[in-house]
Amino acid sequence: MKITPVILAGGAGTRLWPLSNDEKPKQFHDITGDGTLLEATIRRLLPLNPDTCVIATSGTYEKMSMKELDRTGLHGKVLVEPEAKNTAPAILFSAIYFSRLFDDSIMIVLPADHYIRRSDIFIDTIKAAILEAGKDNLITIGIKPTSPETGYGYIKAGGGNGTAFKVERFVEKPDRETAERYILEGNYFWNAGIFVWKASAIINSFKEFMPGLFREFTPLLSLSAEEIALNSGKIFELKKKIFSNINGISIDYGIMEKAENKIVIPADLGWKDLGSWNSIDEVLEQDENGNRSPAHNPVFVSSKNCSVFSEGRTIALVGVENLVIVESGNNILVMNKNNNQEVRKVVEALKKRKE
Amino acid sequence: MKITPVILAGGAGTRLWPLSNDEKPKQFHDITGDGTLLEATIRRLLPLNPDTCVIATSGTYEKMSMKELDRTGLHGKVLVEPEAKNTAPAILFSAIYFSRLFDDSIMIVLPADHYIRRSDIFIDTIKAAILEAGKDNLITIGIKPTSPETGYGYIKAGGGNGTAFKVERFVEKPDRETAERYILEGNYFWNAGIFVWKASAIINSFKEFMPGLFREFTPLLSLSAEEIALNSGKIFELKKKIFSNINGISIDYGIMEKAENKIVIPADLGWKDLGSWNSIDEVLEQDENGNRSPAHNPVFVSSKNCSVFSEGRTIALVGVENLVIVESGNNILVMNKNNNQEVRKVVEALKKRKE
Repeated sequence: MKITPVILAGGAGTRLWPLSNDEKPKQFHDITGDGTLLEATIRRLLPLNPDTCVIATSGTYEKMSMKELDRTGLHGKVLVEPEAKNTAPAILFSAIYFSRLFDDSIMIVLPADHYIRRSDIFIDTIKAAILEAGKDNLITIGIKPTSPETGYGYIKAGGGNGTAFKVERFVEKPDRETAERYILEGNYFWNAGIFVWKASAIINSFKEFMPGLFREFTPLLSLSAEEIALNSGKIFELKKKIFSNINGISIDYGIMEKAENKIVIPADLGWKDLGSWNSIDEVLEQDENGNRSPAHNPVFVSSKNCSVFSEGRTIALVGVENLVIVESGNNILVMNKNNNQEVRKVVEALKKRKE
Repeated sequence: MKITPVILAGGAGTRLWPLSNDEKPKQFHDITGDGTLLEATIRRLLPLNPDTCVIATSGTYEKMSMKELDRTGLHGKVLVEPEAKNTAPAILFSAIYFSRLFDDSIMIVLPADHYIRRSDIFIDTIKAAILEAGKDNLITIGIKPTSPETGYGYIKAGGGNGTAFKVERFVEKPDRETAERYILEGNYFWNAGIFVWKASAIINSFKEFMPGLFREFTPLLSLSAEEIALNSGKIFELKKKIFSNINGISIDYGIMEKAENKIVIPADLGWKDLGSWNSIDEVLEQDENGNRSPAHNPVFVSSKNCSVFSEGRTIALVGVENLVIVESGNNILVMNKNNNQEVRKVVEALKKRKE
């Protein structure tokens, strides 16, 4: 069966300001020095020989997305979501597109903004997932937790064959104590939002668990794949109408928590959700003073434990510790690593100034 | 008698990197939000109705200097020093120029990179100095010390009339204990390098105390003022030869320490040598959190006691304290205020990279 990845590249997010902003969200930036996150996400899949690829995003990022895709050499389409409505509609939209293009295919659903260090293990894991998906199961990849994170949802694994396990349940972001218990118990995994399934299987699940949403999308079922992929014209107007009628809902809530045929494949991928400046520290190598920088070598004088992200300007640090420094476009951030959560206050303040 | 200021605008200095550098030293920057230091220095003199003005600097800064002068509306010339040879040669050069232009005049010699808050008191002080200069004295302005600074030279005042005092002696940068004693004694003043004298008086002093230097300059005595001001051609070649033959020496060592007819006029000018990032803090107003910025309003979130210098980019500070942040051209400095002295290490490191 054809292999057809879907990269979810919609969100913007302000926690990586000034690098990530509405004009150019984080997936279009080279944060780690390995190419943009979107490009790295696509390249990571190439050993699977995918037949085509879909990037689901908003119209704002259509051209940027196409450029990243072109750079990888993989053929594909940008499916523009007329409105951001969370993951379930984007996935159904893609599944219908693939079902019109290839009759059926194996979909690999991935967020565009994650870091995965061990791409070989990633490939092996996806291959195992593809086998399970062939049995009409819905597969989610479970990340072996390395710490009692309270910022992620967890997947509880039940019985299995050593590689693939029944999903016993999905659990919300736990408190610290609960997360520590999960780690000790050993059968809880982080929910990374990476899914593998047949297009037909997920379409059937939508019919069963989200019939209202599915009904809204039925006008697309009679279109050709080419028409579905149109990002302008009459058919795009139709899609706009569909998206304006539906509610935003995640695939986790909408399908995964309800479906019976769900399987988790645990894996130790060196995975990281690059959701904040501090999280990026964990994927960058540090020098003997704990300083990190993916590129454009800064000058460190009497400075320790600082992380510097530059688009090319020379940044010099003198006598400072525990800072994140970012220069991007016309903006510069100087932040104490302990104040990671306050970046959004900057974004709010700047928004207010514009008013 | 004509009033003829000489602005000494030669030096570069690396302690205000990245703002101040060889291409554009600090005197050409608007550091305090009041216009460039050079422009402010010229404007401060305008109430004296000067007849013309000389900016003594190197060829590199000729055009920049002329631009600043033009902006003030004062007529004047840039006297290019073919080589940097400290203050004495530049002053003699200017004195000869003025003596050819006006026969005699009152010279006011000022560094281009000082900050003076009380310009009205400055004008009164210079007027008092002009009176004294009329008596063929050499006048130096003595800044009333506000703290036991060890980074400045001091002038010890002797007997006087309440406004003008005989200079008893010049003293080198003292240690802390000595500086504290000076403050207590009350008749010691900071040497700011601001001088007032007749062109004829300083030329006579050169003849007496620096006859070797004076001899080198004698070829200029037969030229017209216009020729002396030429910054190219045969006559500039002659000046180049003169400057390459002489030693660099300050007016303090060369003349002031030896002359008898020297007078100090003490003044409380709100004066500041803007020699380091920390010194600039003292001339900038702070907000309720101790944050300072002359322009381009930065975003301060949970931050205290920081100073931000921007050429226009948006700088956001989150959870930081006691930092100086400067963006200029292609460079960004993030410095702990306690590490003020280490800026030069950055300049050295960057120089090495280029090698």
